[in-house]
Amino acid sequence: MDGTRLFEEISRKKSFLCIGLDTELEKIPLPLRDTEFPLFEFNRQIVDATHDLVIAYKPNLAFYECYGAAGWHQFELTVNYIRDRHPDMFIIADAKRGDIGNTSRKYAGAFFDNLPCDAVTVAPYMGSDSVTPFLQYPGKWVVVLALTSNQGADDFQMISNTDHERLFETVLRKTAQWGNTDNMMYVVGATRAAMLVKVREILPDHFLLIPGVGAQGGDLAEVAEYGMNKQCGLIVNSSRAIIYADDSEKFALAARDKAREVQQQMQELLKKKI
Amino acid sequence: MDGTRLFEEISRKKSFLCIGLDTELEKIPLPLRDTEFPLFEFNRQIVDATHDLVIAYKPNLAFYECYGAAGWHQFELTVNYIRDRHPDMFIIADAKRGDIGNTSRKYAGAFFDNLPCDAVTVAPYMGSDSVTPFLQYPGKWVVVLALTSNQGADDFQMISNTDHERLFETVLRKTAQWGNTDNMMYVVGATRAAMLVKVREILPDHFLLIPGVGAQGGDLAEVAEYGMNKQCGLIVNSSRAIIYADDSEKFALAARDKAREVQQQMQELLKKKI
Repeated sequence: MDGTRLFEEISRKKSFLCIGLDTELEKIPLPLRDTEFPLFEFNRQIVDATHDLVIAYKPNLAFYECYGAAGWHQFELTVNYIRDRHPDMFIIADAKRGDIGNTSRKYAGAFFDNLPCDAVTVAPYMGSDSVTPFLQYPGKWVVVLALTSNQGADDFQMISNTDHERLFETVLRKTAQWGNTDNMMYVVGATRAAMLVKVREILPDHFLLIPGVGAQGGDLAEVAEYGMNKQCGLIVNSSRAIIYADDSEKFALAARDKAREVQQQMQELLKKKI
Repeated sequence: MDGTRLFEEISRKKSFLCIGLDTELEKIPLPLRDTEFPLFEFNRQIVDATHDLVIAYKPNLAFYECYGAAGWHQFELTVNYIRDRHPDMFIIADAKRGDIGNTSRKYAGAFFDNLPCDAVTVAPYMGSDSVTPFLQYPGKWVVVLALTSNQGADDFQMISNTDHERLFETVLRKTAQWGNTDNMMYVVGATRAAMLVKVREILPDHFLLIPGVGAQGGDLAEVAEYGMNKQCGLIVNSSRAIIYADDSEKFALAARDKAREVQQQMQELLKKKI
């Protein structure tokens, strides 16, 4: 899926919402916990209830790996289920991988050959050969961590170099040369909406994946104000605020209501800006 | 296992060798490929043939994840096998993880609660809360990427800040404050032995995990010259040069011979320096 197709989906659904599937056994309704594949069962119901309101799902690998091979299997079931039912859904494996070239190729294979993911999040610390293997797959994307939404982001991402360019700016500028606007996007934390101005100065045309709206406290209108471009250029993620909107067996309907609320805000913002 | 215990093992075995289990189906002997768990079967034979010559094994997750849940299962079988047979072996999950706090906690759980790994490699880009959850486990270690051995390492790790400190130096200095010499070690690429001098100026006492001796071309004597401290302070990894020393059914014996060769060099270096 290229950027144009992604924008078509955004226009069609009037939404640039991504639901993060950070699914925890301890947080899903009790009856589901006794099923054979509880994480998948929860995800399936969330997807069934929300797919028309969102353009992407983003399972975070940590939440599956912490259950070992059984967790990985449920990650696979989830990705395959989404792809089978919703061929145009954008699936982001939030894995934050990155290693030397021959190893990054294996990670790329894990998500793009063995599984029908559309994108993988990648940490840029190891440089070009840790990122470029993910770009060898036509129609697939790498989502590079640029400016994250957590407290620790300041530790390294905000360090200025001798030319007074901060590390996250260098990451944006340099990695953008390795790919293009149809195969690279960037994580930019929504808790730093003011920074979006800076990001858009460097990369006006790339898609940005914005985590942190919801539980992490970002503001959607501000993100749209400073981050939206002519092709929207935004995928805004919400995880806990949607999937755990209710902890009873009505969780999927509650998730739908919450997603619908965000989607309607997005519809207004799209109307205003594009 | 703390640093003192690790040094005891190094002294007892006269070795600071780690074997990287970067096990690829395409590279293992044909008869093994037809077994139920070929990656595990290969690893098991490597471990059986080399355990007295090494102090650590380092399976790299990418090589297991690329086979999905089935691959993860064989990673688990490998780790559990090593732990059962060799309680004092140091097991490093080379996963290069790192995410916001609540997510890094899940990754830590994957390797330290569900599995008996001793250490996990972690990418520092996201800062303190991406690293510290791994430090909540007594006796467990985080191995922070500082200066890696790949070409792309220059892209960001060598950037100088306004005080003319390079990023990898800042990573060493800053992250070291989050833990201590008994729960943090650092990846320093052996292809950059001269840089070891700089690393040892900043962190004289920490253990360093040195990849890149062997297939990636580092030189062991140089690494010992510039990197060794009173407690050795080095774990030198070799992957492909050992595990793929021979591609016939004699691979395990060939791996042993190769490991023995490296161990004997290490024995001499330990004698000379400590």
